[in-house]
Amino acid sequence: MTRILYTLCGRDERRPFSPHSWKTVMALAHKGLDFEERPTPFTEIPKLENGFSKTVPILRDGDRLVRDSFDIALYLEEAYPDRPTLFGGEGGKALSRFVEGVSQTLVHPVLTRLAVKDIHDMLAEPDQIYFRETREAYLGRKLEEFPPMREAEIDNLKQRLEPIRHTLKHQAFLGGATPLFADYIVFGALQWLRVTTGPLPLSSGDTALQWYERCLDLHGAKGRAFG
Amino acid sequence: MTRILYTLCGRDERRPFSPHSWKTVMALAHKGLDFEERPTPFTEIPKLENGFSKTVPILRDGDRLVRDSFDIALYLEEAYPDRPTLFGGEGGKALSRFVEGVSQTLVHPVLTRLAVKDIHDMLAEPDQIYFRETREAYLGRKLEEFPPMREAEIDNLKQRLEPIRHTLKHQAFLGGATPLFADYIVFGALQWLRVTTGPLPLSSGDTALQWYERCLDLHGAKGRAFG
Repeated sequence: MTRILYTLCGRDERRPFSPHSWKTVMALAHKGLDFEERPTPFTEIPKLENGFSKTVPILRDGDRLVRDSFDIALYLEEAYPDRPTLFGGEGGKALSRFVEGVSQTLVHPVLTRLAVKDIHDMLAEPDQIYFRETREAYLGRKLEEFPPMREAEIDNLKQRLEPIRHTLKHQAFLGGATPLFADYIVFGALQWLRVTTGPLPLSSGDTALQWYERCLDLHGAKGRAFG
Repeated sequence: MTRILYTLCGRDERRPFSPHSWKTVMALAHKGLDFEERPTPFTEIPKLENGFSKTVPILRDGDRLVRDSFDIALYLEEAYPDRPTLFGGEGGKALSRFVEGVSQTLVHPVLTRLAVKDIHDMLAEPDQIYFRETREAYLGRKLEEFPPMREAEIDNLKQRLEPIRHTLKHQAFLGGATPLFADYIVFGALQWLRVTTGPLPLSSGDTALQWYERCLDLHGAKGRAFG
């Protein structure tokens, strides 16, 4: 197979957890494209493909190498225009950046605080050293300070998913009656939380959770296939 | 002229301040459609057009009456397909709902707390009574409790505009190189704050403010034409 997707894992490579890599897993599945997934520990990523990228996902598609989940989605849309669209036109492409903005600037910070200690504990030793050093510097706290804030962060998460609930009053997916890349952007964020910390802390009546479950069922339940 | 747009005003009808009505003002201007604006006080709205709607905007387009800013945008897109698009395709239409969700569930609550006392003070007496009663019940506080929280709410506002700044790293408008209805959704929210409380509490180097200023300059600087 000539299509390889490098993703992120800890000690157990059956539990890839990078939110950005999950976006790409779903984007490739959406386009109906086969690929071999190669989950990679943090400290091995800079060695992949002759140092092509410091972060995953990295997609090798034949001779072509592409990095960054959004750029990969744009690449797939251009390279495979006859497959189902990831954006639904130019307006959808532009507004997917806004969805990315919401996910990465408002939702990710909460998820980071919820998951950072569990992520650390999933890693092999060399990755734990790297992870603790970089994350504690970035977050300005010891990793052990986060678990006690869990309940407050769950409240934050619930609030920051309100835009999704608003959208779901009008349609089944963020992308409309069927999903688009925008759905996979937020799905990837929540999948990150689930793979690293367990079942999402949302109630069964929460339409945002119901939407996430619909995403899990997409493309042969690709999102359920781990661990 | 057969096109009438009912909007919202206080004592001074030259200062229409409804965020939703501003979305429609910009949407009509975007489509290049002339209209007569009729700013209306809160307590007069239920009497408009034989009680057609409890809220503005209300658009009369010849024989057609349409309410709700999003529904009006959808109507305009369908009725005037040869004019510049408000959505940029089906994906853009779907994701505009998500932008509306962000604006109404994350940004509006902060703007409400920042503006609610000033809005009250702009109203004529019968509207003040209606407004205080409904808003204090909804917000669970006296209107006078909000101004002292101003600095904290400004910090909240700055944080909740982060998705816009993220988007603007990649493009000039939320809609891409040129604006779409999604831009007018968030513009309307900030315009509401400016018309009711004065200059936006954002620094000149803030890309979100620079984008808002670009929106003000659109369509013959329509957004600057008040007061």
